Amino acid sequence: MAIIVQKFGGTSVANAEKIQRAAGRAIRAAESGNQVVVVASARGKQTDQLIADALELNPNPPKREMDQLISTGEQQSVSLMAMAIHAMGHDAISFTGGQIRMMTDSVHTKAHIVSIDAERIHRQLERGRIVIVAGFQGIDEDENITTLGRGGSDTTAVALAAALKAKECEIYTDVDGIYTTDPRIFEGAVKLDKISYDEMLELASLGAGVMHIRAVGFGKKYDVDIHVRNSGNETKGTLITHEVPQMEGVVVSGATVQKDMAKISLVGVDNVPGNAANVFSHLAAAKVVVNDIIQTEVSDQKANLSFMVAISDLESAKSAVSEIEDDLNCESVFVRDDIAMVSAVGVGMRTHYGVAETMFSALAKAKINIDSITTSEIRISCAVDKDQAEEALRAVCVAFELDKPAAERTQT
Amino acid sequence: MAIIVQKFGGTSVANAEKIQRAAGRAIRAAESGNQVVVVASARGKQTDQLIADALELNPNPPKREMDQLISTGEQQSVSLMAMAIHAMGHDAISFTGGQIRMMTDSVHTKAHIVSIDAERIHRQLERGRIVIVAGFQGIDEDENITTLGRGGSDTTAVALAAALKAKECEIYTDVDGIYTTDPRIFEGAVKLDKISYDEMLELASLGAGVMHIRAVGFGKKYDVDIHVRNSGNETKGTLITHEVPQMEGVVVSGATVQKDMAKISLVGVDNVPGNAANVFSHLAAAKVVVNDIIQTEVSDQKANLSFMVAISDLESAKSAVSEIEDDLNCESVFVRDDIAMVSAVGVGMRTHYGVAETMFSALAKAKINIDSITTSEIRISCAVDKDQAEEALRAVCVAFELDKPAAERTQT
Repeated sequence: MAIIVQKFGGTSVANAEKIQRAAGRAIRAAESGNQVVVVASARGKQTDQLIADALELNPNPPKREMDQLISTGEQQSVSLMAMAIHAMGHDAISFTGGQIRMMTDSVHTKAHIVSIDAERIHRQLERGRIVIVAGFQGIDEDENITTLGRGGSDTTAVALAAALKAKECEIYTDVDGIYTTDPRIFEGAVKLDKISYDEMLELASLGAGVMHIRAVGFGKKYDVDIHVRNSGNETKGTLITHEVPQMEGVVVSGATVQKDMAKISLVGVDNVPGNAANVFSHLAAAKVVVNDIIQTEVSDQKANLSFMVAISDLESAKSAVSEIEDDLNCESVFVRDDIAMVSAVGVGMRTHYGVAETMFSALAKAKINIDSITTSEIRISCAVDKDQAEEALRAVCVAFELDKPAAERTQT
Repeated sequence: MAIIVQKFGGTSVANAEKIQRAAGRAIRAAESGNQVVVVASARGKQTDQLIADALELNPNPPKREMDQLISTGEQQSVSLMAMAIHAMGHDAISFTGGQIRMMTDSVHTKAHIVSIDAERIHRQLERGRIVIVAGFQGIDEDENITTLGRGGSDTTAVALAAALKAKECEIYTDVDGIYTTDPRIFEGAVKLDKISYDEMLELASLGAGVMHIRAVGFGKKYDVDIHVRNSGNETKGTLITHEVPQMEGVVVSGATVQKDMAKISLVGVDNVPGNAANVFSHLAAAKVVVNDIIQTEVSDQKANLSFMVAISDLESAKSAVSEIEDDLNCESVFVRDDIAMVSAVGVGMRTHYGVAETMFSALAKAKINIDSITTSEIRISCAVDKDQAEEALRAVCVAFELDKPAAERTQT
């Protein structure tokens, strides 16, 4: 019998009616001959409420206690879901992360999964029960409750699908799937039927919401088919899966824009071994997430080093840099806080020529100046002026025909 | 270093301000040189809200899932309490029932404690931390979460005090302690400084609120001093403790009234072995709690059998009785649903004469008819007409001078 994992996010279990709808979906999957494991997040705004309760008592609460507190949100959802399934005539049992030995490291509020006791779940499935597991949480070796941080429930679902060797991991959300780009900016955006793990990883790390990068990474590592679907309808969603040859026929699968970026340029840094490492270890110590590092030699002795950070990290980044400016013998530091990044992603880039040219021409035609360019094997990103961010995204989308299903595009 | 257990009920942790007040009390106890363990209940109306959420989805939710759900209330309280203590500059750590291996049987919603891992708590106390434990909950052998039922958090606190060999178990509530009787009925009621376990057990089983019978029973079994106090002030409360000789100098420690009782009388039952057992096994199967059984022989062949039940159990009791009426060859069944029980309790009864007479005279003087009488070694109970219940209680209180501290009473 095949195992299916279904994950319902907070908005999909926000109230009794939605819990019943999710319960009905789990029952239908069971009655179609599958063994069903459900992963649920905390109901709607419960987690926010608990965080507010905590901050009222302690502006800087100990992380262990924060995990102890907020993990109750998912525990409530899963027991309520089990009750709803019982009321609809099917057997079900709920588990906390601890009860299925979802073992993690001890990094509270952003723990990593180490192992799962699949046996306890298998035993329950074999008794014909739907098993409901609390997402987002685990325990460490000392039975302290941990949480997995952003995207945690998706990660739980994909990790469970891997541990149980499930046929598919369905991620239910409030959109129909993954789109070629953000439909709020480019109206013509179309839903993708399939996307490879690598493309989804790039898109997720470029700020495309829906799926979190950790869950996709888990899916890739264990080859779990992830089906992103709408909990409110029966539409087929987007399958995130391993790469198959025909995917390379699609040059660009999606495009994203990251607004609110800043670029820090260190001009005329001494070009000696260890200087770059010095910069980024200081930034890491300040917990700044750095994107798109560019280093260029300007002479035998000097190099320019620039990188992008989110605006929210800019102050921390600037003070980390100022601490080491003298060590680097840096001539000047230049900051642009009005930058946006427009990116195109597709595994087809590996085998198609002229992709970069199409993108640069599209931006040029729209009279958008490119501040800097970075690329990976399956991605091209251009830093542009913030005021032109949305216009730039639309130009890129039109150039790569992201308003058409892949099959109908003119290959570039 | 002495260990003190402090238990705070739902009203004592209902909001941030009250949690801070409780936290302050725990810190003061720690700074006076004690090792402090706090047991907390769910905040205010949280449990009621969770039960309402459950019933919206399932009018008859599986008990295992109910425990999984409502145990989150205490888990939230303890983590919030730990955060509050941290914010006030003292170290603290919170534990769920499962985390300290509060092992119970598997009777969901009314489990019994089997054992506790005191070691984990000792280790934390030795590190100078205040340990906060979720009341009301445990786990069974399969790590299913269980709850202890009514009075569960008190039971947790007393059981912990026993396991840790604590000096004292403080039960914080919203009244100053145990009173000679209900002050809402008899204005002159005075607070008791001390009361024996046996007296408290009788009073609790007669419906005197404040402490639950299970917690007191645990206290008696393990000789734990239980100090019932007001969380809102510094008044010394009532100490529930083992019996000391001078307690027998007090004839009556307290008096209670139970309204909403009913009496079922089986008239002319065949007086053969096994008949009484037959009646009460049927009542037990119908989950009816029976009080004050009276059997009297009326002839060689026949006996009358009567007993009291709460009005809320009356219908179940009547149908249980009707199933066996014929077996008993019962002449008639007589039901009074307008009964109240007035009781006086005191270990001094064992050594004092005339206690019953004082009680009956007091009722007679107040023109209150006594329907039936039952006694234990330290209790006298009279069934009276419901409309005269409060008047009867006041007459008994006056007769035994329950408006005066024990030392100032004229011995009866």
